[in-house]
Amino acid sequence: MEQEKTLREESRRKVLEKMMSMSLDALIVTDLAVVRWLCGFSGSNARLLVTRQKNWLFTDFRYREQAANEVQAAEPVVSDAGFSAELASGRYHLGHTVALQADSVTWHEAARYISMLEGKQRVIPVDTFFDEFRMQKNGIELEKMRKAADITEKVLESVLPMISPSVSELDIAAEISYLHKKFGAEKDAFDPIVAGGSRSSMPHARPTNEKLVPGSFIILDFGCVAEGYASDQTRTVALGSISAEAREVYRVVQEAQSLGVRSARCGMTGSELDDLVREFISGKGYGAEFGHGLGHGVGLEVHEAPRISRTGTHLLQDNMVFTIEPGIYLPGKFGVRIEDTVVLGPEGAKPLQRFPKELLVL
Amino acid sequence: MEQEKTLREESRRKVLEKMMSMSLDALIVTDLAVVRWLCGFSGSNARLLVTRQKNWLFTDFRYREQAANEVQAAEPVVSDAGFSAELASGRYHLGHTVALQADSVTWHEAARYISMLEGKQRVIPVDTFFDEFRMQKNGIELEKMRKAADITEKVLESVLPMISPSVSELDIAAEISYLHKKFGAEKDAFDPIVAGGSRSSMPHARPTNEKLVPGSFIILDFGCVAEGYASDQTRTVALGSISAEAREVYRVVQEAQSLGVRSARCGMTGSELDDLVREFISGKGYGAEFGHGLGHGVGLEVHEAPRISRTGTHLLQDNMVFTIEPGIYLPGKFGVRIEDTVVLGPEGAKPLQRFPKELLVL
Repeated sequence: MEQEKTLREESRRKVLEKMMSMSLDALIVTDLAVVRWLCGFSGSNARLLVTRQKNWLFTDFRYREQAANEVQAAEPVVSDAGFSAELASGRYHLGHTVALQADSVTWHEAARYISMLEGKQRVIPVDTFFDEFRMQKNGIELEKMRKAADITEKVLESVLPMISPSVSELDIAAEISYLHKKFGAEKDAFDPIVAGGSRSSMPHARPTNEKLVPGSFIILDFGCVAEGYASDQTRTVALGSISAEAREVYRVVQEAQSLGVRSARCGMTGSELDDLVREFISGKGYGAEFGHGLGHGVGLEVHEAPRISRTGTHLLQDNMVFTIEPGIYLPGKFGVRIEDTVVLGPEGAKPLQRFPKELLVL
Repeated sequence: MEQEKTLREESRRKVLEKMMSMSLDALIVTDLAVVRWLCGFSGSNARLLVTRQKNWLFTDFRYREQAANEVQAAEPVVSDAGFSAELASGRYHLGHTVALQADSVTWHEAARYISMLEGKQRVIPVDTFFDEFRMQKNGIELEKMRKAADITEKVLESVLPMISPSVSELDIAAEISYLHKKFGAEKDAFDPIVAGGSRSSMPHARPTNEKLVPGSFIILDFGCVAEGYASDQTRTVALGSISAEAREVYRVVQEAQSLGVRSARCGMTGSELDDLVREFISGKGYGAEFGHGLGHGVGLEVHEAPRISRTGTHLLQDNMVFTIEPGIYLPGKFGVRIEDTVVLGPEGAKPLQRFPKELLVL
């Protein structure tokens, strides 16, 4: 808990420094992941007000006790009237310029604050304000991310023996959600993807009642949230004997993924890393079948900055955590994706996962 | 499927009529629940463009096949460049006035469209545009909601025998998530609440590793999503013998809940119904301990209009579906909440749940 407290104070200091440099007197945080990062509160209804004097955390009656237990480095306010009314009350020292998270607040909510504060404060939008703090993880965060990754990997090991022609995709997905919680996660980071047979060609397939099909791939892509931090991992396994084409595609994806992990370096951009792997896959003749980005940042959210894709302009740096997950998808036939979440360091990228990436035939 | 198709066409007709009456030529739908309602697409990345000519559904490569399979009453567009670029392309006939869902789109995204379309189209905000269509359910929707409610009730019946001093809140929560999927749901509608001992006084407690405590209440509040529609139900049970005060509070909540169900009528507002139950609880001396609203609409989302709370201004009408869930919470001691999801009809409210509300001592 002492460590957590230091973390919160450090976060506030960094945020305040950036606010000063941008001449912002107050900042309204609407993104719940950032709220949790700044003050520890994990409820579903919250607004955090950062002023030069202090942080205020606003929530409702349902979270009265939770706020008292969880909130650090902010003063909790449980308000019946809601945050807008609190803001309008004049009780909080907002100064001249109030910033809103334009990439998180709705247009409606922004308009309400603007009209409410008109004549007293200038309301300005800030975008990706917290990305720079969130992208590079500190030691406490990395420890939590390792914990989340370990839970997910333990779940993967536990569900593999279940895989047989007598179970459905949904059976496996249910087991994944169950085991994530049993092994200590708060919840799934996203709906588990379990895609067998020709459905493996759908990168984001929803599990169905269909039984697993012998002689085909099964894509298993899932992650959890533990202590507020996400994990994300994909393995593709074969159920019984598969075609030569399928083996070839697996080999290409495996090499591409390994190339991505080997090539990641501080100082390159996400799009450079994406390019490199994309060229390799294109060289093998599957460029059109790798239609999504190579990866994405992971942290408080399972998708966050930096992007590792054609639109990834961030410079990759020390202690950034992101996925490397190339895939090849042949509609109506099959698909393969292999994904690790890696931590970038001076020596390159180190996967949080240890599970082998050689083709596993069950 | 034929039925679904009729539903989609009917939805489009109603939306188009409202657009005409408001002189809107095009509408950009950013709320994924509404996207699913209008065209059946259930992926995690989508924008739906409603024009006078037709509906367009925009998504990315990951959902290429899913869009082709799921989308009805809209033309799917899988775009690498993204929706903004598509919109700027001039390929879509937007007319003069383009509306955005101000209560769903971010300020950032709205600003992008506004600057992009400047000089060609006027971009205007609409709020709660779809509430009137979503609040009153039709036969197909009610059928799906019954299915979702039945799954959750079956889960409740299955987990009750597990309750003992040797299991933790998280054990039960894991089982709930597991069984929801096994019984045919897509997923939990929200993180299951399983709160034993003094944690039952936290209305939205997160399940912990703590074992269940004999002589105390356990609040079980959970729901699932099935075929896109949500369920929501709460029961409070006792593990072993409980105090006279606890029994008295249970009795008050049970009476209050029953009063709410009995009193709901077409033509009253959500706040009138809330008042009525709140007065009853206040009369028993527990007014300050019932700090949340009486209920909320349920449908495509587990929280939607109408509000059944002090801010509930909607007139309650035929085929509205909402929860009635009074609770009393004594911090550090215990809490009780009982919740049904009801369908309103000419004869009053009919719960979707059948599970008894008498105190169950396990």
